[in-house]
Amino acid sequence: MTQMRLGMIGYGFMGRAHTNAFKRVPDFFPELKYKPVLQAACGRNQEKVDAFAAQWGYASTETDWRKLLERDDIDAVDICAPNDRHKEIALAAAAHGKMVLCEKPLAMNTADGIEMADAVEKVGVANTVWYNYRRVPAVMLAKQIIESGKLGRIYHYRANFLQDWCISEEVPQGGASNWRLAIDEAGSGVTGDLLAHCIDTALWLNGSISQVSGMSETFVKERVHVETGELTPVGIDDACAFLCRFDNGSLGLFESSRYACGHKALYTFEINGANASIRWDLHDLHRLEFFDKADQGALRGWRTIHVSDHGGDHPYMGRWWVPGLQIGYEHSFVHQAADFMASLEKNEPCSPTFREAVETQKVCEAVLNSAANEAWMKV
Amino acid sequence: MTQMRLGMIGYGFMGRAHTNAFKRVPDFFPELKYKPVLQAACGRNQEKVDAFAAQWGYASTETDWRKLLERDDIDAVDICAPNDRHKEIALAAAAHGKMVLCEKPLAMNTADGIEMADAVEKVGVANTVWYNYRRVPAVMLAKQIIESGKLGRIYHYRANFLQDWCISEEVPQGGASNWRLAIDEAGSGVTGDLLAHCIDTALWLNGSISQVSGMSETFVKERVHVETGELTPVGIDDACAFLCRFDNGSLGLFESSRYACGHKALYTFEINGANASIRWDLHDLHRLEFFDKADQGALRGWRTIHVSDHGGDHPYMGRWWVPGLQIGYEHSFVHQAADFMASLEKNEPCSPTFREAVETQKVCEAVLNSAANEAWMKV
Amino acid sequence: MTQMRLGMIGYGFMGRAHTNAFKRVPDFFPELKYKPVLQAACGRNQEKVDAFAAQWGYASTETDWRKLLERDDIDAVDICAPNDRHKEIALAAAAHGKMVLCEKPLAMNTADGIEMADAVEKVGVANTVWYNYRRVPAVMLAKQIIESGKLGRIYHYRANFLQDWCISEEVPQGGASNWRLAIDEAGSGVTGDLLAHCIDTALWLNGSISQVSGMSETFVKERVHVETGELTPVGIDDACAFLCRFDNGSLGLFESSRYACGHKALYTFEINGANASIRWDLHDLHRLEFFDKADQGALRGWRTIHVSDHGGDHPYMGRWWVPGLQIGYEHSFVHQAADFMASLEKNEPCSPTFREAVETQKVCEAVLNSAANEAWMKV
Amino acid sequence: MTQMRLGMIGYGFMGRAHTNAFKRVPDFFPELKYKPVLQAACGRNQEKVDAFAAQWGYASTETDWRKLLERDDIDAVDICAPNDRHKEIALAAAAHGKMVLCEKPLAMNTADGIEMADAVEKVGVANTVWYNYRRVPAVMLAKQIIESGKLGRIYHYRANFLQDWCISEEVPQGGASNWRLAIDEAGSGVTGDLLAHCIDTALWLNGSISQVSGMSETFVKERVHVETGELTPVGIDDACAFLCRFDNGSLGLFESSRYACGHKALYTFEINGANASIRWDLHDLHRLEFFDKADQGALRGWRTIHVSDHGGDHPYMGRWWVPGLQIGYEHSFVHQAADFMASLEKNEPCSPTFREAVETQKVCEAVLNSAANEAWMKV
Repeated sequence: MTQMRLGMIGYGFMGRAHTNAFKRVPDFFPELKYKPVLQAACGRNQEKVDAFAAQWGYASTETDWRKLLERDDIDAVDICAPNDRHKEIALAAAAHGKMVLCEKPLAMNTADGIEMADAVEKVGVANTVWYNYRRVPAVMLAKQIIESGKLGRIYHYRANFLQDWCISEEVPQGGASNWRLAIDEAGSGVTGDLLAHCIDTALWLNGSISQVSGMSETFVKERVHVETGELTPVGIDDACAFLCRFDNGSLGLFESSRYACGHKALYTFEINGANASIRWDLHDLHRLEFFDKADQGALRGWRTIHVSDHGGDHPYMGRWWVPGLQIGYEHSFVHQAADFMASLEKNEPCSPTFREAVETQKVCEAVLNSAANEAWMKV
Repeated sequence: MTQMRLGMIGYGFMGRAHTNAFKRVPDFFPELKYKPVLQAACGRNQEKVDAFAAQWGYASTETDWRKLLERDDIDAVDICAPNDRHKEIALAAAAHGKMVLCEKPLAMNTADGIEMADAVEKVGVANTVWYNYRRVPAVMLAKQIIESGKLGRIYHYRANFLQDWCISEEVPQGGASNWRLAIDEAGSGVTGDLLAHCIDTALWLNGSISQVSGMSETFVKERVHVETGELTPVGIDDACAFLCRFDNGSLGLFESSRYACGHKALYTFEINGANASIRWDLHDLHRLEFFDKADQGALRGWRTIHVSDHGGDHPYMGRWWVPGLQIGYEHSFVHQAADFMASLEKNEPCSPTFREAVETQKVCEAVLNSAANEAWMKV
Repeated sequence: MTQMRLGMIGYGFMGRAHTNAFKRVPDFFPELKYKPVLQAACGRNQEKVDAFAAQWGYASTETDWRKLLERDDIDAVDICAPNDRHKEIALAAAAHGKMVLCEKPLAMNTADGIEMADAVEKVGVANTVWYNYRRVPAVMLAKQIIESGKLGRIYHYRANFLQDWCISEEVPQGGASNWRLAIDEAGSGVTGDLLAHCIDTALWLNGSISQVSGMSETFVKERVHVETGELTPVGIDDACAFLCRFDNGSLGLFESSRYACGHKALYTFEINGANASIRWDLHDLHRLEFFDKADQGALRGWRTIHVSDHGGDHPYMGRWWVPGLQIGYEHSFVHQAADFMASLEKNEPCSPTFREAVETQKVCEAVLNSAANEAWMKV
Repeated sequence: MTQMRLGMIGYGFMGRAHTNAFKRVPDFFPELKYKPVLQAACGRNQEKVDAFAAQWGYASTETDWRKLLERDDIDAVDICAPNDRHKEIALAAAAHGKMVLCEKPLAMNTADGIEMADAVEKVGVANTVWYNYRRVPAVMLAKQIIESGKLGRIYHYRANFLQDWCISEEVPQGGASNWRLAIDEAGSGVTGDLLAHCIDTALWLNGSISQVSGMSETFVKERVHVETGELTPVGIDDACAFLCRFDNGSLGLFESSRYACGHKALYTFEINGANASIRWDLHDLHRLEFFDKADQGALRGWRTIHVSDHGGDHPYMGRWWVPGLQIGYEHSFVHQAADFMASLEKNEPCSPTFREAVETQKVCEAVLNSAANEAWMKV
């Protein structure tokens, strides 16, 4: 058994989700040689980080991430700070020889992302980006179906990610809870926050995107900034959609918004091949819809696969309960944490690496540029 | 071409539905030798029957069904009068050598049903009972799947028929619109009106029922009678459910109610075999759900078959539009009317005949007896 | 009572659908003063048009539409010929003072459409274009909800129309069955055939579109032409998608394809407002999904409205059966036919008129131009 | 902070589920004064119990539950042994003054259940039975809706629990994995295993059941017994259904089977009141369907509530992630564990107590008796 002593940077929504993931790995993936140890939690507010550490069982706390990185008893850092701090922390972590796990999106822009990927590769530290939805069992099953060749030539890929929490003009920007609305901290709005998930999955399932035509909008032009209390221009994209062409000749259609009344976190994708099609959505993440033209004529129909069978049939599900009993959102993180530990053991990269995440960054950047310029852009 | 000169008795909901059916047969089943002719409409109220005939194109009217039966220019009569008049009309029609189509349930009780079946068979006139749901394309497809043997040994059959229009105590009983609530005219409540449909389909798909244990209830004990304006005891069953055993060893569960808030006409059935299962419901009658254990392990799932393909794949659908475009409730009657005309041409019975409908009557009677006696009853 | 003596030009899928519609109007809309009379069917093949007329009950036939237009006993013509013949026939019909009903899309291009609209307006003949989906009860209910103001400010509109019948390279182009694949006869591929429906509904529900960015693709580059038997380049768009901005500030996303495996005729739309959202799809056309933010917090959820209630609650449904019993695709044509007859009585236009349909034509043209030029285009 | 030192008896499916639950309580319910401590795991097989303890973090092991009960460092025992051992262990645990948590069903029969309830009450130790589905957030929301009075007079309650894992005759009986098929260890088949869940929820939501009419069947008459390797008669009920009457006047219909092809763990219930109805199923446990007659006429429809909102709106969900992100099966145990700890703090019973679980036992027993005697039975 080998300890992986973890330093968690950030104690917000993602800090909780990642911590929970690591804590559950030994219970459900007991064969793994590497075991996570909650060595230190790090956050700027001493009181809050202490409370977080006490609740979750971290052995120590830091309020300065630089100090955390200097500690010898830390093997890996997990970056759950707002987007604008990813680069600096990651570069420093690599410099200290720490493994680095980074919340998505990797960076504020492509250039930063490349710099970060270069850094971890130069030092040779293990790294991964938390595009967690790849490891929802139904999504992994989609990957397996596609790799089996069942779909044939691909014609279409469409995805969207719809939320509705920004409709009210009263929602402020900035601060611990709403830094995602502040351009300086988030880098972009729905593009980096939501479309990035759609793009990561798409690149993984359907290959590279060559060109895009985007459209974005900021519906609420000014919001109160939490730090100043002032009504401040909103710099992020509230909604963004784009058309694209994949290298395999298929057409893509993507959309994201925080103004889609009735949808809380509705990430959906669909892929149409010559012989079969697949659909998935996050609101019923334990199901995969599948249409197979090979089914007997009169009995063809979309199947709704309840992805809960164990026994090796459904990815990851043998780890959990019995057939028919669903798991939830948080398990995607448990799976990625476990896969990360397994990759250490096998001395292999844990996908998506920083380098792979740069590809998503490139598409995001092209989309935002295309929207700004009202023109098609090459990726 | 041979004319089938029709006399329609009754101009209510079913009078309309059957008339519409006959009118559409030549357009969509043009190859049939027999062509319906709307020769006469019959109803007690002269003004109303005249209006009905004018609207739908009947060539003449009668206010006394006895006179209708005496006419030489009538080949077939369609009985859409309330249940308590079925027997008398049918016996007379047979005596006059007319073909007889009868709205369901066939009779007020089993003895009457047998008498009616004996009568039409003795004279040898074509006859059928309008258990129209058999001819919904998705239901016919279910029949074909079952007959193919795909299901294997059958373990379970369950069905219900849920409505909610009787919850209000203000709904009166009796009269043209609400004779279904008056025991003298209807014979029973949900058992003859709704469960009879479930039972007919079940006997057709899954074979005979040997014994039943029923439970019924009248939730609203008194309702104003339309004819007297008086608050009068309610004699019908408002809700009825029963357990049963089929001859093939499978277990059955049936339920019906007019007090199931939110359901308008939700007839559903499901049949579970060793190798496959089937589900259907009337609120989405153009779909059939199908689960096949033979599907590859990880990709097993309930299929929702959109029963709209033409080209011979889906029963009856080649008559209508193009794939993906659904038909509705009324088409089940068009199909039965067309099948009736086709059966004349082939000189074959049109299922369900009066004799077959007696079987449903027997089960209904056993259920009501069982409920009244709180004991299992043999059918 | 006033007769509207109809001349039907074309006896294909739409010829059948429209004829069926007119035949059913008097049965279900008996109060209308105007009554359709199936006076003449017109088609180039004498044998086929005779068979069609015999089946459906047309009193006479013509093989030359010019002769049809010269007849004094024709009040209205219904153009169900391929797209490339719409203009010539419509102009001639107007010149002869006939009412004109035209299958969609109105024209091969905007200029032709304007010429047609000018022609019917100059003569002052009644006219309409068969964008039939407006008159699906659930879609009309959506219109009523939107007009009630329940949605508030609109942020998003998305629609697609997906089919899969062109995946096989063996499907030929041209001829009676596949003229929709031949550029000379169809004018465009999915844009005029399918997106036109989406656009018509969108303009009606959400107002004008100001600019578009389109992308189109022809997946199968050559298909055998039915008339020559030769492998011939395919000129139509197999798939087309576009981003757009509406005048009301909302963002639009549209897509159509005939290569979406598993979808037969899946037309879907969704509209998101600040206070409520609506979704609909053609595969379950009798349902409308509705989300209302005003519902009590914990009990908010998407409602699936079974649009089958009569009594004035659901548009058109009082004409048909009883609550819970669905109608189908063909009824949208019955409703438009009835509304057309009613508009004659009231001396009002029947929406969408030729003039209104020109707006859809403009958007289609802008989309195709945008796709060809890879640039945003103003409508 | 007060420790609750736990002794877990059994390390099968339920041993894992309960252990996971206790481990997660402090992370997600940090305010609780009582903290679980995994003090000892107990099982007959030393090697297996050691492995289990090592994996999950138990501090010690026992192979004899009597020894476990004698230990002073154990405050509470959790009984996850097969049904036939519940009574003996529970009585002994009470005698030692330990708190007792018991997996369902409480006992092999009503008499045993009463004895157990008497025992824990006499000593006054905290006790609960793991009818975990009450604490699925959607089910708890159903409870809140019902208690708010929104449903009005109740007419119908229906529930079923369908699985398909016993269709193959090759499945053996007995042993660690299949003791649920052996009558000596399980006491009954689907009645105690599955219907007991349905009954517990029903009693909780809809009050007492007064009488029942049951029907049961053993489809596979002999199965190999794991311990002897011999083909041995099957004593359990493979399927069981019953009709019933509730004290509030509503009618009930229940069914359970392990031979329902296509269903893995489909527990569903529906309740129809005069003003509203509710539906739920375990295969999509994060959703609740709700129909409210009070909704505006034309816009009435079944709502599908995605029970994932935090902020106090949805029971328990404020503990987890953000709106739109679902939790799974295992969380129902976490909630019950947390509620148990909270009840200690408040010195209140944790529902369902042993005494409450006896009520479910009574109904189970009446159902099995009714089925055996083919007669209605009072509960």
